[in-house]
Amino acid sequence: MSENISVLGLGLMGSALAASLIEAGHRVTVWNRSPAKADPLVARGATRAATPAEAVGASPLVIVCLLDCPSVHEVLKEAPLEGRVIANLTTSRPAEARETAAWVAERGGDYLDGGIMAVPQMIATPGALILYSGSQPAFDRYEQAFTAMAAARYVGTDPGMAPLLDLAMLTGMYGQMAGYLEAAALVRSAKYPLTDFTTELLVPWLNAMAAQQPRWAEAIEAGDHRTEVSNLEVNRAGMENLVRAFQEQGVKLDLLLPMKTVIDRRVARGLAHEGLSGLVEEL
Amino acid sequence: MSENISVLGLGLMGSALAASLIEAGHRVTVWNRSPAKADPLVARGATRAATPAEAVGASPLVIVCLLDCPSVHEVLKEAPLEGRVIANLTTSRPAEARETAAWVAERGGDYLDGGIMAVPQMIATPGALILYSGSQPAFDRYEQAFTAMAAARYVGTDPGMAPLLDLAMLTGMYGQMAGYLEAAALVRSAKYPLTDFTTELLVPWLNAMAAQQPRWAEAIEAGDHRTEVSNLEVNRAGMENLVRAFQEQGVKLDLLLPMKTVIDRRVARGLAHEGLSGLVEEL
Ligand SMILES: NC(=O)c1ccc[n+]([C@@H]2O[C@H](COP(=O)([O-])OP(=O)(O)OC[C@H]3O[C@@H](n4cnc5c(N)ncnc54)[C@H](OP(=O)(O)O)[C@@H]3O)[C@@H](O)[C@H]2O)c1
Ligand SMILES: NC(=O)c1ccc[n+]([C@@H]2O[C@H](COP(=O)([O-])OP(=O)(O)OC[C@H]3O[C@@H](n4cnc5c(N)ncnc54)[C@H](OP(=O)(O)O)[C@@H]3O)[C@@H](O)[C@H]2O)c1
Repeated sequence: MSENISVLGLGLMGSALAASLIEAGHRVTVWNRSPAKADPLVARGATRAATPAEAVGASPLVIVCLLDCPSVHEVLKEAPLEGRVIANLTTSRPAEARETAAWVAERGGDYLDGGIMAVPQMIATPGALILYSGSQPAFDRYEQAFTAMAAARYVGTDPGMAPLLDLAMLTGMYGQMAGYLEAAALVRSAKYPLTDFTTELLVPWLNAMAAQQPRWAEAIEAGDHRTEVSNLEVNRAGMENLVRAFQEQGVKLDLLLPMKTVIDRRVARGLAHEGLSGLVEEL
Repeated sequence: MSENISVLGLGLMGSALAASLIEAGHRVTVWNRSPAKADPLVARGATRAATPAEAVGASPLVIVCLLDCPSVHEVLKEAPLEGRVIANLTTSRPAEARETAAWVAERGGDYLDGGIMAVPQMIATPGALILYSGSQPAFDRYEQAFTAMAAARYVGTDPGMAPLLDLAMLTGMYGQMAGYLEAAALVRSAKYPLTDFTTELLVPWLNAMAAQQPRWAEAIEAGDHRTEVSNLEVNRAGMENLVRAFQEQGVKLDLLLPMKTVIDRRVARGLAHEGLSGLVEEL
């Protein structure tokens, strides 16, 4: 079904989103603070709006993709939100999303907050995912349209939930990256070919380890951190060994030292028999 | 080809290794400090040795899997190593492995150090991998026999290389685990079902991110950290946002704070345009 959709914010991401909607046959109205960024989209069939108010007035579904939360409030403050669905895909913190949702509701609008798990180049390709939270009726009404941009997943009525899960995924990525950087520094110190190590050894190993995470999730949800595989005492000794090996190779283990601290703390509490999942209780 | 192989050390891992060799049709001699642990293996066809010296004397290939490096020296010190291949699969640091290799060479033995990337339950199953480094002739001679225990990969003549790569893989895992624990703590604070988050969102995302690691490896090997995707300034802002979101949710981001520190330091050096791979230069 072809919809009327406005897109506010035509940076790298907003432009990719608007293009995917045009491609899918929707009638798209676009607005950007610097008007020139609308040109390529207008050339592909989009309608240009002169102001945010005009853009919001043009469509019942308004997709917003600006720099940050303050720019969203600045852009929408003069616009008539009554009866509109505002799908705000600007990266926000959970608390900001809840605040914006309340602000939009006061103005008579319906609100969805989105977390984009993709770079612009991935929009409209199979790997891309956008999480949505907030108004369930709004999501149900436009789910199909959203799918033109990326796989769409609704994660709950709390508008802060999509940004929270987005941040949690980024968090997981930063940890994985920290581990990668330390591993790479160690391997480089021994002059072993890093590409070979990464491709042949590390990536398959990390994928196998990630496959264990659902079991850790169960342990955490159950609050039962007992393990038969590798308890905290084994990990404490392993970490001590790691620290020493890094020292001997002249490489700093800085990115992982808090992991050691937290393991040591937990062992000192008498919980050496538990598994690594128990560390979550210290966070 | 059926070989004569001795296994010293019949803890959880040594017993699994010996069992896999018996299963594959080799003639296996076993020794353990506490003799009772040999019983199940003798029942399956292994020969019991009364002393380490007797065990070493019985076979040209001697697999050692004890607690740690000091226990290896203690057990082997009275044994006739002349003309033997010692494959030491006891977890050691690279420096210890180099030392043990020299010690064995002084006694006329040939040395391989191994890093076991598996738990005992995985031995002789497709997921198991053992890295070997040290004497290439020794590896070539016994590669086939090693394969009964786990996939065997030779990683170089430096005896410290297998333990170093083993530690580098553990390092990668600890980082991934740190990220998981932080992500889980955040998700739990919002009462979102953690198993669902882990299975549906995080694991596929981490696998997609791990698939980028070979590109980071190339950047690190080339010393060229320029990026078009997500530079350090973007990551600095992202980290700041993350820290605030964790605070707002009442969750400690302790495990990832050094990542923030190192990003900030690198940006302060004027390298905001580089990508995350450049952080390796700070380690
Ligand atoms: N790029 C990615 O990989 C990616 C991935 C996931 C999520 N996101 C999120 O998507 C959003 C947009 O990112 P992007 O990559 O498109 O960024 P970008 O290329 O820097 O674009 C920023 C956009 O915000 C506008 N803007 C900034 N301040 C404004 C203000 N005060 N008033 C009006 N408009 C203002 C800019 O307008 P001008 O053109 O006039 O400057 C531009 O349209 C961000 O929240 C980002 O976190 C991006
Ligand atoms: N289990 C795993 O998941 C795993 C994974 C990878 C690598 N590894 C490595 O494999 C090695 C063995 O691990 P494991 O799981 O088999 O450990 P384990 O079950 O605790 O067995 C330890 C073995 O070392 C012997 N031992 C300890 N100190 C000794 C000494 N001073 N003199 C003689 N023997 C001594 C023990 O003999 P007694 O029976 O007499 O106590 C036992 O045979 C370790 O280096 C470990 O890091 C284990």
